[in-house]
Amino acid sequence: MLCASFALVAEPTSKRRPHVVIIGGGFGGLYAAKTLRRADVDVTLVDRRNHHLFQPLLYQVATAGLAATDIASPIRKIIGRNPNTTVLLAEVLRIDPAQRRVELHGELPPLDYDALIVAAGVRHDYFGHPEWEKYAPGLKNLEDAMAIRSRTLLAFEHAEREVDPARKAAALTFVIVGAGPTGVEMAGAIAEIARQTLSGDFRRIDTRSSRVVLIEGGPRVLASYAPELSEKAKASLMDLGVEVRLGERVTLVDERGVQLGSGERINAETVVWAAGIAASPLGAQLGGETDRLGRVKVAPDLSVPAHTEIYAVGDLIAMEQDGQALPGVAQVAIQSGKLAAQNALARLQGRATTPFRYTDKGSLATIGRKRAIAQVGKLRLSGFLAWLLWLFVHILFLIGFKNRISVFINWAWAYFTFQRGARIVLTEGAKNDRP
Amino acid sequence: MLCASFALVAEPTSKRRPHVVIIGGGFGGLYAAKTLRRADVDVTLVDRRNHHLFQPLLYQVATAGLAATDIASPIRKIIGRNPNTTVLLAEVLRIDPAQRRVELHGELPPLDYDALIVAAGVRHDYFGHPEWEKYAPGLKNLEDAMAIRSRTLLAFEHAEREVDPARKAAALTFVIVGAGPTGVEMAGAIAEIARQTLSGDFRRIDTRSSRVVLIEGGPRVLASYAPELSEKAKASLMDLGVEVRLGERVTLVDERGVQLGSGERINAETVVWAAGIAASPLGAQLGGETDRLGRVKVAPDLSVPAHTEIYAVGDLIAMEQDGQALPGVAQVAIQSGKLAAQNALARLQGRATTPFRYTDKGSLATIGRKRAIAQVGKLRLSGFLAWLLWLFVHILFLIGFKNRISVFINWAWAYFTFQRGARIVLTEGAKNDRP
Repeated sequence: MLCASFALVAEPTSKRRPHVVIIGGGFGGLYAAKTLRRADVDVTLVDRRNHHLFQPLLYQVATAGLAATDIASPIRKIIGRNPNTTVLLAEVLRIDPAQRRVELHGELPPLDYDALIVAAGVRHDYFGHPEWEKYAPGLKNLEDAMAIRSRTLLAFEHAEREVDPARKAAALTFVIVGAGPTGVEMAGAIAEIARQTLSGDFRRIDTRSSRVVLIEGGPRVLASYAPELSEKAKASLMDLGVEVRLGERVTLVDERGVQLGSGERINAETVVWAAGIAASPLGAQLGGETDRLGRVKVAPDLSVPAHTEIYAVGDLIAMEQDGQALPGVAQVAIQSGKLAAQNALARLQGRATTPFRYTDKGSLATIGRKRAIAQVGKLRLSGFLAWLLWLFVHILFLIGFKNRISVFINWAWAYFTFQRGARIVLTEGAKNDRP
Repeated sequence: MLCASFALVAEPTSKRRPHVVIIGGGFGGLYAAKTLRRADVDVTLVDRRNHHLFQPLLYQVATAGLAATDIASPIRKIIGRNPNTTVLLAEVLRIDPAQRRVELHGELPPLDYDALIVAAGVRHDYFGHPEWEKYAPGLKNLEDAMAIRSRTLLAFEHAEREVDPARKAAALTFVIVGAGPTGVEMAGAIAEIARQTLSGDFRRIDTRSSRVVLIEGGPRVLASYAPELSEKAKASLMDLGVEVRLGERVTLVDERGVQLGSGERINAETVVWAAGIAASPLGAQLGGETDRLGRVKVAPDLSVPAHTEIYAVGDLIAMEQDGQALPGVAQVAIQSGKLAAQNALARLQGRATTPFRYTDKGSLATIGRKRAIAQVGKLRLSGFLAWLLWLFVHILFLIGFKNRISVFINWAWAYFTFQRGARIVLTEGAKNDRP
């Protein structure tokens, strides 16, 4: 039952240790692997990318504040030197719970497991309109971030060259759909780029006249925070010149912009999707039940009821605690990743497993330079102090010491100069015009 | 004759100043624009990318030492605030010297000029075999660098997964064609990645057993340097484990590797082209003569003899000085860019132009960590001291203060830890296998 098919290729295993396969190198998978690093098991971590991504800062790459390499670390560098761990750059084709086997794309031999930890996360969902994706990219990985960065910067370049006033206005209109943390952070950052960073760099447009429109179907921004913090965040956004449209649904996205439920049409060259999510399709292959978003209904110990050797973690789990769904944040992934690894090990060793209990260490969201909101237990903070806390926590948790220094310098630079160091479009921007 | 077609769009020009168009935002074009910043002319700088690239460090991006954004600065940020300068992200379709007009791709109005400075540089040339490009990418822009970085890092990942010994060996073989500065720097950096950076990160391969083969048609590496420095550079490369093959021509490049003139075949998954160059096709549209590489035969004052209002600069010019062709280095571009701007202005104002004389400020090339060669006038340096000089000069000349700090930190980090901060493959590496 060991990783026979794969291990034989490398070297004959003298000792048959249980094989734990982890799918996904995000926070959940990484902390699961770290938890197992001294355990008497062989661990294989599979990811289709070579890097772990510090997702809380992804919007900074999308808005030219940080370089892609600042928020990504090679998975091999983080856990590849654990003696019991193999890192495999591969894409999962299929999970076969009956055979306890993970099949991989390409000509790679399958992985047989004794325990499986699935940390495959979520992706965008366009409310049943996948055709919107090409007009309104979401923000889940570095390529998304680079694409949004290019699109945003090129929109200003396009406006500078454009002769037709209506098209010029559309080039200077930025719509962000969804006012969760990502949407709020994106809207704030784009507003700052237009109002401050680029002001004075162009000849034929005044970038400060750009429209940044944040559209949210619910009644408030950052709905997972306390209502008074939502109010503060909304006020901060409006200070930055963001138009906040609450209780509005997007009914159509096309190459020219968006249509709202109220019938209003907003012509915009740049639309960013920060609204819906759906679980990785792997969630449906674990032999258990899933909810309407495709998330796995796990037992309290994070295992799949029908296959207790399989665990799901992070965004992939559908679980309530004290009547509330767990939020899709890094802390849930980290804590569930650790516990899933401990429970998998416990079960392999015939010990009892422990139920999962998420400890909320607090939430932070930033709205541009010097503004943020924080909610830690009963404590509510907003403004500059919350922003300092946000800065401190994010630099502290960034994986990789060098990245911390680099990010710190990028931020200090941006703070004092209003400049953004990563205003680079990788492709030949000149050809990338939208019609 | 002014930029009527374009300027009318923005605002009615109350005063008709001469219009100088600069094509290209590399060293030549940028220094031409800087030289004109206080002149009584309107300047339009056209580039198809939004950034200036610090090309001497491009190989560091290709070898995961630096982030793309470390060596690129937005052209707007550098010169966009000069009051007389318009930066235009656009691609040149055609130059019409008779009409004194530059036509642009897309629906953009053409640019009419009173003086034109063409700094369009060079591109790769595959000795009449354009079909080799897809197997052996060259290194001229950030996309090239990212592609080579991905290919190199993925080759190790592929080797780790590969079962077939021959294919595993090919995955661990890296061929660099051409032993000029770029080829030597690439070979040294890849050897260091294999021997030091990655050593210990993999389970099924020993990256230190990788082959790095540097192939050069001529009799020595870095032929533009003094022979004793070429010898030192070769010895340094061999110390790093690079196989240096001099006097060997590549007769075929295909998906499996390269074939040499001697009949030998080297199977390699990664081949990097650092051999031939050819001038931008724009050189042939200036109404003058070109040499066999397509470079423009300019008059001593850098103008095109048949159209003295047109100037060519940098790599684009075919010129000899003291019996030797000018080298394709940043200093030639900078010095000729400045002089072309001065001469263009002089002629517009009815003054005499000045002939170009290149002042060699010295050459530097690095071969991995702690090793370099330097040639400054009669002075020849090699080893650690030359490397420190290289470091100092490159950080000093990097455009953008923030980039300097960021690069310095990246290097200090790499120096003390043997790690490379930018080991990130942006695409989903798992699917990128070559057949």
